[in-house]
Amino acid sequence: MAGNTFGNIFKLTTFGESHGVAIGGIIDGCPAGLKLDFKAIQGELNRRKPGQSAIVTQRKEPDTVEFLSGIFEGQTTGTPIGFVIKNTNQKSKDYSHIKDVYRPSHADYTYEKKYGIRDYRGGGRSSARETASRVVAGAIAKQLINNVQINAYTSSVGDIFLEKPYQDLDFSKTESNDVRCPDQDTAERMIDRIKAIKKDGDTIGGTITCVLQNVPIGLGEPVFDKLHADLGKAMLSINAVKGFEYGSGFCGARMKGSEHNDLFNDDGTTKTNLSGGIQGGISNGMDIYFRVGFKPVATIIQKQDTLDRSGNIVEMQGKGRHDPCVVPRAIPIVEAMVALVMADFHLLNKMYK
Amino acid sequence: MAGNTFGNIFKLTTFGESHGVAIGGIIDGCPAGLKLDFKAIQGELNRRKPGQSAIVTQRKEPDTVEFLSGIFEGQTTGTPIGFVIKNTNQKSKDYSHIKDVYRPSHADYTYEKKYGIRDYRGGGRSSARETASRVVAGAIAKQLINNVQINAYTSSVGDIFLEKPYQDLDFSKTESNDVRCPDQDTAERMIDRIKAIKKDGDTIGGTITCVLQNVPIGLGEPVFDKLHADLGKAMLSINAVKGFEYGSGFCGARMKGSEHNDLFNDDGTTKTNLSGGIQGGISNGMDIYFRVGFKPVATIIQKQDTLDRSGNIVEMQGKGRHDPCVVPRAIPIVEAMVALVMADFHLLNKMYK
Amino acid sequence: MAGNTFGNIFKLTTFGESHGVAIGGIIDGCPAGLKLDFKAIQGELNRRKPGQSAIVTQRKEPDTVEFLSGIFEGQTTGTPIGFVIKNTNQKSKDYSHIKDVYRPSHADYTYEKKYGIRDYRGGGRSSARETASRVVAGAIAKQLINNVQINAYTSSVGDIFLEKPYQDLDFSKTESNDVRCPDQDTAERMIDRIKAIKKDGDTIGGTITCVLQNVPIGLGEPVFDKLHADLGKAMLSINAVKGFEYGSGFCGARMKGSEHNDLFNDDGTTKTNLSGGIQGGISNGMDIYFRVGFKPVATIIQKQDTLDRSGNIVEMQGKGRHDPCVVPRAIPIVEAMVALVMADFHLLNKMYK
Amino acid sequence: MAGNTFGNIFKLTTFGESHGVAIGGIIDGCPAGLKLDFKAIQGELNRRKPGQSAIVTQRKEPDTVEFLSGIFEGQTTGTPIGFVIKNTNQKSKDYSHIKDVYRPSHADYTYEKKYGIRDYRGGGRSSARETASRVVAGAIAKQLINNVQINAYTSSVGDIFLEKPYQDLDFSKTESNDVRCPDQDTAERMIDRIKAIKKDGDTIGGTITCVLQNVPIGLGEPVFDKLHADLGKAMLSINAVKGFEYGSGFCGARMKGSEHNDLFNDDGTTKTNLSGGIQGGISNGMDIYFRVGFKPVATIIQKQDTLDRSGNIVEMQGKGRHDPCVVPRAIPIVEAMVALVMADFHLLNKMYK
Repeated sequence: MAGNTFGNIFKLTTFGESHGVAIGGIIDGCPAGLKLDFKAIQGELNRRKPGQSAIVTQRKEPDTVEFLSGIFEGQTTGTPIGFVIKNTNQKSKDYSHIKDVYRPSHADYTYEKKYGIRDYRGGGRSSARETASRVVAGAIAKQLINNVQINAYTSSVGDIFLEKPYQDLDFSKTESNDVRCPDQDTAERMIDRIKAIKKDGDTIGGTITCVLQNVPIGLGEPVFDKLHADLGKAMLSINAVKGFEYGSGFCGARMKGSEHNDLFNDDGTTKTNLSGGIQGGISNGMDIYFRVGFKPVATIIQKQDTLDRSGNIVEMQGKGRHDPCVVPRAIPIVEAMVALVMADFHLLNKMYK
Repeated sequence: MAGNTFGNIFKLTTFGESHGVAIGGIIDGCPAGLKLDFKAIQGELNRRKPGQSAIVTQRKEPDTVEFLSGIFEGQTTGTPIGFVIKNTNQKSKDYSHIKDVYRPSHADYTYEKKYGIRDYRGGGRSSARETASRVVAGAIAKQLINNVQINAYTSSVGDIFLEKPYQDLDFSKTESNDVRCPDQDTAERMIDRIKAIKKDGDTIGGTITCVLQNVPIGLGEPVFDKLHADLGKAMLSINAVKGFEYGSGFCGARMKGSEHNDLFNDDGTTKTNLSGGIQGGISNGMDIYFRVGFKPVATIIQKQDTLDRSGNIVEMQGKGRHDPCVVPRAIPIVEAMVALVMADFHLLNKMYK
Repeated sequence: MAGNTFGNIFKLTTFGESHGVAIGGIIDGCPAGLKLDFKAIQGELNRRKPGQSAIVTQRKEPDTVEFLSGIFEGQTTGTPIGFVIKNTNQKSKDYSHIKDVYRPSHADYTYEKKYGIRDYRGGGRSSARETASRVVAGAIAKQLINNVQINAYTSSVGDIFLEKPYQDLDFSKTESNDVRCPDQDTAERMIDRIKAIKKDGDTIGGTITCVLQNVPIGLGEPVFDKLHADLGKAMLSINAVKGFEYGSGFCGARMKGSEHNDLFNDDGTTKTNLSGGIQGGISNGMDIYFRVGFKPVATIIQKQDTLDRSGNIVEMQGKGRHDPCVVPRAIPIVEAMVALVMADFHLLNKMYK
Repeated sequence: MAGNTFGNIFKLTTFGESHGVAIGGIIDGCPAGLKLDFKAIQGELNRRKPGQSAIVTQRKEPDTVEFLSGIFEGQTTGTPIGFVIKNTNQKSKDYSHIKDVYRPSHADYTYEKKYGIRDYRGGGRSSARETASRVVAGAIAKQLINNVQINAYTSSVGDIFLEKPYQDLDFSKTESNDVRCPDQDTAERMIDRIKAIKKDGDTIGGTITCVLQNVPIGLGEPVFDKLHADLGKAMLSINAVKGFEYGSGFCGARMKGSEHNDLFNDDGTTKTNLSGGIQGGISNGMDIYFRVGFKPVATIIQKQDTLDRSGNIVEMQGKGRHDPCVVPRAIPIVEAMVALVMADFHLLNKMYK
């Protein structure tokens, strides 16, 4: 109820603040007998962690996951999987300047109004650091549904768009550059843009496109838990996300039915796929694809006026080490949340068999 | 789990197929002592019902809600509110032509693959008729949180866009025309467009914008149940929705942090509102606004190839009485789902007081 | 949250007051493709309904269930099953005498204090009439898990106890007498006792024993949702229940470990079954058996002092047609709740295969 | 779903095996601004921990709780409270003898059949060690609802019963002896009995009675989540519990309505309290009291035949350090589970105000 649990069957509950002792979580409902590839789990965490390239925050945290339960001799046992990631590079002193100040377009003000108290250090619970726990759980979910291929990539940074449709991309290239755009030429332009923005002490928004392939038919639970509704919620629960569209998306809202309908082939596949792999909230076996919009990071290294707890407008300057663009590090988070949704619906669907 | 329940505290479970005996639902968790305005409830249903204007389906259904429980002497008692809406104009014979055929971009194929059986009459459970139950519950939710003003309106039909920002609109005009666009001039162009589309036996997509005003500070439950994440899921659960964006939305993904940050006034309001009234998943007291994209209705009165249950491609022609554009009738559904989300978070938030 | 839903996967939500328009419910999560035996469902309702014999209330209600959705051509479709049972014999005037009075050991006082309002007619929502909806859902659950045999019977009325162990009983005899005790001699003594009590305008308590046979190994979800914990909750949710014990029960609390341990046979069965078919919260394939204690019905046809809404002690005399002993009519309710629990765990267990 | 979460609003999820790295949990939904008394929390853990007296297991574990999140400057922040208790005294070698053997009346067999794999060390997840996490959460719940007094005590060991009604007891004496029975004379007889049993390498069952005083009127959610139904489930979820009865309990099943009804005083209290403080599933402000039956611990230090994984009957002898009677150490567990139930209903009830 208080918002820290995701999923119904394959269920993740997370805890932890940016500058507390540790973050972590409990995965409940992972079936027994899954042989875990721990290297792959840590690999996903490494994709998300700070300090991995020139265009992300230079903060260094090892982000090593430690599993506490639910695994015996390398396999899941069906009991809850508890895990922690210690906060090692906390530099809490960095944040004394925001103790009594609400940073613009951050969650400082709303957390304090809602709860009456706030752990101001590094944004506390509202920090995107929490998403590391999601990446751990998502990495396990990926191993559970390893037939489904999930590929997210950066599709725009500011007004630099990757114009190619996903069918023309080689997803194996996504990790070959720092911005995680599988088209090398576009990637370079994006990287240059982020570097320029960073130099100005500013930040920039962007979009991520995600493609799911080899999805079984029949996932999704109408009428409220439509597959795309839960994917949308999963994406909108990620820090800085402002929009979600799947299949034809907002473009579809400009089209005519005669243009938009996906005609069938005789094997049940469709000639076009404006539906985005989902009809009536249930996967139809075609590729699922969607797009997620991220706002620019609110922390900028420029002077801004802001409000303090006493109701005064005061000048503040962002400090610390922040991301000029959230998108590259959000790729593994998007994939993790997708994996959680799909693992949950996969398990739920077994009930009907 | 099977997807027919929405909400946690103020909780709606719906049942019913398009051409069964009745549709209806149970509202559980509505506080006791709420004096219901039954006329207002029926009024919302009337806004959604078919046959109300020249640009919607000519099907006629009275759509009269009958309450069975949970109300005593005009007030809610705190016990579950059961209600039914009888299906009176079923014309099941209309649908014999689709018994063995999967209509393109409908849910026929996915329902049959998921469940192994399908009530083909009028789309069965996948029909938007189900949303009448949501409108009933939403109308009660509106009365529970009657301080919050919820105004949805048609903001585009095909490529005809209402260009004015919502601040320049008079929401009291929304109901003054058939397309439910509060700008009369734009409304007329939209209506003409829909009439032309209808004449061709085709359909067209559109978008709805919704504005919430006078929202209390503090609603929303991070990290997974962010206010906008649940609003997004609510919208994406409505038939034909392909996209959701709030505040700056996808435009925000093209902006710089220095442009996008909402600076504070000394009363805690902000000078701009690109955040869309939500920061860190919690309402900040500013207006909440978002946009929802709807695809064109899949049923067109034109010949199309499609697939039958035996795996043959066959020609079919849409019959029956269908909406050329779903958007005008979806306005009350959007508002209802918003009311359900807000009532739920309102009740949940009382726990923290 | 508000307490009107039972189960997680196979999920029942009920609505309705004793003297409202109708009672009913929604079953969500019943798998598709189950061919329903409607006669068997009505048969279970008939076992519970009033007026069926000389030792139960003489109120007459047909208690006919009407299904509104989720069933097509006699089979479940996987969509929610809505149903209603109309209240036909309401005699609301019978209850005007309790409008302003709280009956002793009824829920009148607590409902009014909790909700601030109460539908006083026949106890409103607190009436055991609500359990008719459970019987409908339980009858469907029984058909879903039809391999499991569920047999409940009256094991005591007042201080008349059926002394035989369940292994010595012929469950096919349970329905052969009005008190539903499979031992004819004991049944006659129980019936005589109830008739005498009734003549005095008094009521009497009793116990029901329930035996589950042919239960698959592996049902139950430790640590909180142990199979016996959910069975216990199910029983304690039935009106008038004061206690639950399974296997050795409270007797086991007087025993030594060397007496109580169930030694294994080499096929995994056990030589004794003091565990009651459940170890660590998970079924082990042996018979599950438990005992439920019911208090005497609070409505007696004698003069009693009671409290009115103004804080005065006033004399009242029970009127209406009430059960002298709740146990015979509670047999199908106990079985229904057991079936709901077992169907839910059965479906949940499929996800982990 | 997988059974490791308890509660709806004040929600505890636990993880951990007896001999894994650590056990622990996440408390989600604890309101912000609660100043925690950490000494009191550790004090509750100390009441439960092994090695505290001559009549419990001599295993020594410090059982120190470490909080990882959700607390800032000594107060709860409204975000999830993660905590761990390290397993320091694991002696895994003690358990090699049960690796391939299913101990009688333990959960070894059912866990292995359900999950296909089992962490056999010390019973793994099925060990009562898990309840230490419940005690931590319960200690916080107690602080949240500190007006409610919760007192559990040993009311029987084997056939030695504390005959006095709870009204004649001084609960402040409960902790004055090792068996936690507030009547010193009975306590001594119980202790002697346990010592004799221990000497024989045997174990013995017992009962705990629990009394709740100063309970607000109105807690509990009919019809399924009746206050006593959730208390019953909470108790039955504790290891070794075989039965639960509240108020008049199974004795009530032998009584007549004219004896059992609780007549009102003019202030809404009742002259008697056979109802046990709950009517219609809702607290009425009178004392709540109930009794819980525990079976004898299954591990005995005697030779027993048992089954191995190859299907052979083999002789085994219990080793290790086990409790001769579970009841004394279960007292704080019972209180913790009660506190969790009451905190949850307390918060839920605030929503309906």
